[in-house]
Amino acid sequence: MKVSIELLTQFAVDALQKVGVCARDARITADVLVKTDTLGIHSHGVKNLAGYIRRIRAGGIRVDVSPCVAAEGPAWAVIEGRSTLGMLSATLAMETAIAKAKACGIGYSGIHNGCHAGAVGLYALMAAERDMIGLAMANDAVSMTVPGACKSVLGNNPFAYAAPAGNHPPLFLDVATSSVAGGKVYKAQALGQKIPTNWIVDERGQPTDDPTGFPHTKALLPMAGHKGYGLALMIECLAAGLTGAAVAGSAKSWISSEPHLATEHGGAFVAVDVAAMRPLAEFKEHMDRMIDYLHGAPRAEGCERIYVPGEMEWERRRRALAEGIELPPDVVMAVDGLCKDLGLTIWTPTFDR
Amino acid sequence: MKVSIELLTQFAVDALQKVGVCARDARITADVLVKTDTLGIHSHGVKNLAGYIRRIRAGGIRVDVSPCVAAEGPAWAVIEGRSTLGMLSATLAMETAIAKAKACGIGYSGIHNGCHAGAVGLYALMAAERDMIGLAMANDAVSMTVPGACKSVLGNNPFAYAAPAGNHPPLFLDVATSSVAGGKVYKAQALGQKIPTNWIVDERGQPTDDPTGFPHTKALLPMAGHKGYGLALMIECLAAGLTGAAVAGSAKSWISSEPHLATEHGGAFVAVDVAAMRPLAEFKEHMDRMIDYLHGAPRAEGCERIYVPGEMEWERRRRALAEGIELPPDVVMAVDGLCKDLGLTIWTPTFDR
Repeated sequence: MKVSIELLTQFAVDALQKVGVCARDARITADVLVKTDTLGIHSHGVKNLAGYIRRIRAGGIRVDVSPCVAAEGPAWAVIEGRSTLGMLSATLAMETAIAKAKACGIGYSGIHNGCHAGAVGLYALMAAERDMIGLAMANDAVSMTVPGACKSVLGNNPFAYAAPAGNHPPLFLDVATSSVAGGKVYKAQALGQKIPTNWIVDERGQPTDDPTGFPHTKALLPMAGHKGYGLALMIECLAAGLTGAAVAGSAKSWISSEPHLATEHGGAFVAVDVAAMRPLAEFKEHMDRMIDYLHGAPRAEGCERIYVPGEMEWERRRRALAEGIELPPDVVMAVDGLCKDLGLTIWTPTFDR
Repeated sequence: MKVSIELLTQFAVDALQKVGVCARDARITADVLVKTDTLGIHSHGVKNLAGYIRRIRAGGIRVDVSPCVAAEGPAWAVIEGRSTLGMLSATLAMETAIAKAKACGIGYSGIHNGCHAGAVGLYALMAAERDMIGLAMANDAVSMTVPGACKSVLGNNPFAYAAPAGNHPPLFLDVATSSVAGGKVYKAQALGQKIPTNWIVDERGQPTDDPTGFPHTKALLPMAGHKGYGLALMIECLAAGLTGAAVAGSAKSWISSEPHLATEHGGAFVAVDVAAMRPLAEFKEHMDRMIDYLHGAPRAEGCERIYVPGEMEWERRRRALAEGIELPPDVVMAVDGLCKDLGLTIWTPTFDR
């Protein structure tokens, strides 16, 4: 199913307003989610609206207040999320970090009492669009084991960055600290397939190629073993330790925990102002040369093209801007469900199913 | 061979002074290298002195100047390394980042014209010892391929962080962005062993279990594929893009490049002042609880103990402080070689070989 960006955005805005989100906050949230879909990161786009709306209705996500800057200094801020939509506190946090970086060269914002903010990379991109390097991290509910353990102990806390280039679009990486995303394990479950043995551990903490039982009795492995474990903990320190948010496995799942509860996610956002340190054009030319160098690297047998981080996502976005977003079946189903639930329509005759 | 910290430090100071390093700079460098050995990271300790001294003699590392702050703002600085010992510019960079963080909450320092600084984690620890969270990164000469390529394209740029705790020692992670360190491949070569197929690629860019030919015709794989690739590039942006240092594969090897040349390494150091954002005792208590939670996680079959990042290193350091440093044979050989070369003695009768 193909849908225009405008239509999908308006749908998301309408859906959020139906459950009491004000026009401005609905727009911020919709823009983040739809942009995520344009980049092809459908696991974190409008598909998740139904889940957020379920929590809004139950009170676990508040719509009667706004996130605010709770404390700040020259180059830092702590954002009080007040259990509002994660996209609102994360957007405010990165905007604040960008303003601090403009004044001081670098800026950090942490989040207390946040919620799931979608793909954290979207906030890193906000910085890159302002010619800054952006870093974005968040902690999450448990889904990942750690070396030596046999159960989910930490979230597979995501990490993202974006850096502006000149002729090329920004470098952009948005990854979980687990070896794979949980979605890949679910997919193998649904298809009855075996999985590589470095994806998950079973109830005894042993590697397994059998995806059944995940996530209840099985847990994701950290990427690169102790390295992913260590990075996930760094994110706990920066995203929750500094702000007092729920730390190391105590953030609640925005999907499966009681929907009237605040999830208490933390977040950490850093912006670095390139122009403070180096003429911007020089930096961008340097980035372009690096990207050209990578594109031109000697290729492995059977490889037609070397990508830089984010390149696939930018190609999808270009296509989405030109032709509309091609939504995969699971997203279409989620949108259809929400249309029925809220009495909305989205698909128009100009877009054939 | 066991040696006391004092003796090894004095040896390193003497060796550096023999080739013209002033007393203060020799002491800074020796302290970094010996502390690295106390943590058990022997690949980056005094073993490497001979290589640094070779470059000093050839002029690729300068001893007639000192690194300095070339440019700065409220929360940032660019350090001009002037091709001096990497430990000097990195120490100045982290000290400057710490001072900026004390004033602004967070501080960044980048390095231009640096050199190999040893284990970057040592600089992250400087921040943790001042009750700050420290991040440290550096780019390096090529040794790692990228997805789709068949040769070394990037350095396996190291990333480190340290975060203070209360009753526990700081969390501490210092990792390369490759799947393994090159040293492990060399070891398998020497022992005639096969290696796992996710360590290196051959000249055609295909995974191989044969370590022979590394690093000339074979290259390290990034950790976790595109994730390690993306992180290595982030380090290029922060450590070299922002400072104008040699970027993406153009930094020269401190070991194998012509020793009269400057290596032009970049570096990036960030300090975050915990106390600016949250009462320090509260943060530390939060960290301690997280560490206790991890220690107490349900264990996998066959696992006796769950470690947190840095715990193994702190245990080695405690032992080294109490009993002296147990140097492995390759380090003893390197030290012996340097003793002959420079006319120094280090081993005393109190330490039996």
